[in-house]
Amino acid sequence: MAVTVALDGMGGDDAPAEMVAGAKAAAADGVRVLITGVREQLEPELAGAEGVEIVDAPDVIESSEEPAAAVRGKPDSSMVTACRLVRDGSAEAAVSAGPTGAMLAASLVHIGRIRGISRPGIAAPLPASGQPCVLIDAGATVDARAEHLLHWGLMGSVFMRDVMEVDQPRVGLLSVGEEPSKGNALTLEAHRLLAAADLHFAGNCEGRDALTGRFHVIVTDGFAGNVLLKGLEGAGATLFAEMRRAAMSSTRAKLGGLLLRPALRGVRDSADPETYGGAYLLGLRGLAVIAHGNATRKGIANAIRFAARGAEVGVVARMAERLAADPPGSDLQAPAAINTVPPVTAPEIGDQ
Amino acid sequence: MAVTVALDGMGGDDAPAEMVAGAKAAAADGVRVLITGVREQLEPELAGAEGVEIVDAPDVIESSEEPAAAVRGKPDSSMVTACRLVRDGSAEAAVSAGPTGAMLAASLVHIGRIRGISRPGIAAPLPASGQPCVLIDAGATVDARAEHLLHWGLMGSVFMRDVMEVDQPRVGLLSVGEEPSKGNALTLEAHRLLAAADLHFAGNCEGRDALTGRFHVIVTDGFAGNVLLKGLEGAGATLFAEMRRAAMSSTRAKLGGLLLRPALRGVRDSADPETYGGAYLLGLRGLAVIAHGNATRKGIANAIRFAARGAEVGVVARMAERLAADPPGSDLQAPAAINTVPPVTAPEIGDQ
Repeated sequence: MAVTVALDGMGGDDAPAEMVAGAKAAAADGVRVLITGVREQLEPELAGAEGVEIVDAPDVIESSEEPAAAVRGKPDSSMVTACRLVRDGSAEAAVSAGPTGAMLAASLVHIGRIRGISRPGIAAPLPASGQPCVLIDAGATVDARAEHLLHWGLMGSVFMRDVMEVDQPRVGLLSVGEEPSKGNALTLEAHRLLAAADLHFAGNCEGRDALTGRFHVIVTDGFAGNVLLKGLEGAGATLFAEMRRAAMSSTRAKLGGLLLRPALRGVRDSADPETYGGAYLLGLRGLAVIAHGNATRKGIANAIRFAARGAEVGVVARMAERLAADPPGSDLQAPAAINTVPPVTAPEIGDQ
Repeated sequence: MAVTVALDGMGGDDAPAEMVAGAKAAAADGVRVLITGVREQLEPELAGAEGVEIVDAPDVIESSEEPAAAVRGKPDSSMVTACRLVRDGSAEAAVSAGPTGAMLAASLVHIGRIRGISRPGIAAPLPASGQPCVLIDAGATVDARAEHLLHWGLMGSVFMRDVMEVDQPRVGLLSVGEEPSKGNALTLEAHRLLAAADLHFAGNCEGRDALTGRFHVIVTDGFAGNVLLKGLEGAGATLFAEMRRAAMSSTRAKLGGLLLRPALRGVRDSADPETYGGAYLLGLRGLAVIAHGNATRKGIANAIRFAARGAEVGVVARMAERLAADPPGSDLQAPAAINTVPPVTAPEIGDQ
């Protein structure tokens, strides 16, 4: 049976047109898509394409709104409706290109956390040389505690193994030097927790190691993770722009650029955030994928496929099993008990 | 009269050969260089070049040593000797490519802090598009408080204005979103302090803005700053390496690469950390410049010139004046009183 993914049809800079187009492309590959949003706006774009159904949701959450208030105040928004479809079992994953903070809040309230995980983490794929790599947390929890970093390391390992098919994922801790003694108060404590945990901890990872492929999972607080992720994106964009300018600077350079262009296409594609299209929000009782706000149909289609892949391998149940085997310790905000197989459709907080 | 710079002749991966060669190149431009280190190793390299004098220092601090212990235990090391030459007035700035942590400790102990500044910050130049930009702190203080960020913003502004000749430096606060409400506990508080201070605060700066030239001074804690700086360096290195590989992948691509190469030289040079050669350590009663550990003669010569420029404009005295005009508030670790013109040669702590 085909996997069903709920797509927020109104989130993102180019909604609903690019959302509908992305949904159609993913549906053509066999994923069933429920697209949420204003029916009158979605219907003409959809034009009766097969495998995509509209779920009417009249409200839209804007990026200017305070996330928690928006999620509370707009229960019939396209984003909240997508999350509710996961909770009630109608869909196996939710995808949104809407505001990240709102999607985080909507997921927490309407999908709920895995027991024992106090903070979900955003697992953002990095364009590392030659192999898959994921940075977690890329911005969900900007003031993190050491046990959050441990949980993200455990969840990142499961994600890499089950979704990205990496045999023994190497986990690195983002820090300011390779030696275990280098770091801030948070990473020094997290280093001890990660070294004692049942995962393949490969030590500290510096900013310059992020793209080298030395690590499959890079664990960090959401502040440094977000800064690094956006820094890498910005560095790529700046360099490509400067090279384009240089390649237009003379007749000789123009000819060189023309000849070199096909060979450079692979480099550009590997640095393209649309290759995966989105980041998993890990630590929830269901699957949520956060797509880039400026995603095009290509990115949205890939985000839907990426979400479907996670649903197919049952990544949420596997993650809960893994966390039960290595239970969190002194986390005051979360109960110590963990369900080995959590009910994916039951929320832990809100709406009960 | 020529400016005198003390160079740690034994620090860095390629010491002493590259240190001596860099010293000679800077001396040829009219900077007087005192090079510290093991005389028998320096003398043959120097071969009687004019404008460079050896100051004998038999010990060397290794990167494997714990910084504070190394600085205490090796008072006659090349690094500590360079800092002492600044303190006793024999040199106006110290430059070292040795271990950053040790240079920080040596500067604190032997040059001393400006009164009112509890933590110095590393001001690392960024290769931003079209204009000078400095990131502060790039790794000196990994657990920072909001008032540290305020001090770094004030000092970064003075540095940009006086050393880099930027008329009205725009100060940005590194964070996870543009809106003032986005950030972690540290940046939310720092945002309020910076907005109220007498500097040109231009709001939050995201990781992707670092190279766009929107900001002249980017203020952040030493952990996130170090992660971002190394991430940008790593992204550049990875992209250039992948492009080189792509440009060797076919006859057509090879020809394109050859034709394009001269035009790309400018792009490569602007991303080259050796262009400035080093980062200022701001907040001290004298000038200290931290050079890259793998610096070549080019980088060392530029670091010496960069240090000499700061001495020429009297950046330390100007910084102290600026801080006196906008005195730090509730900083428990530092006295509130500030000398308007601090005695550059007198240390605040240690060796008295």
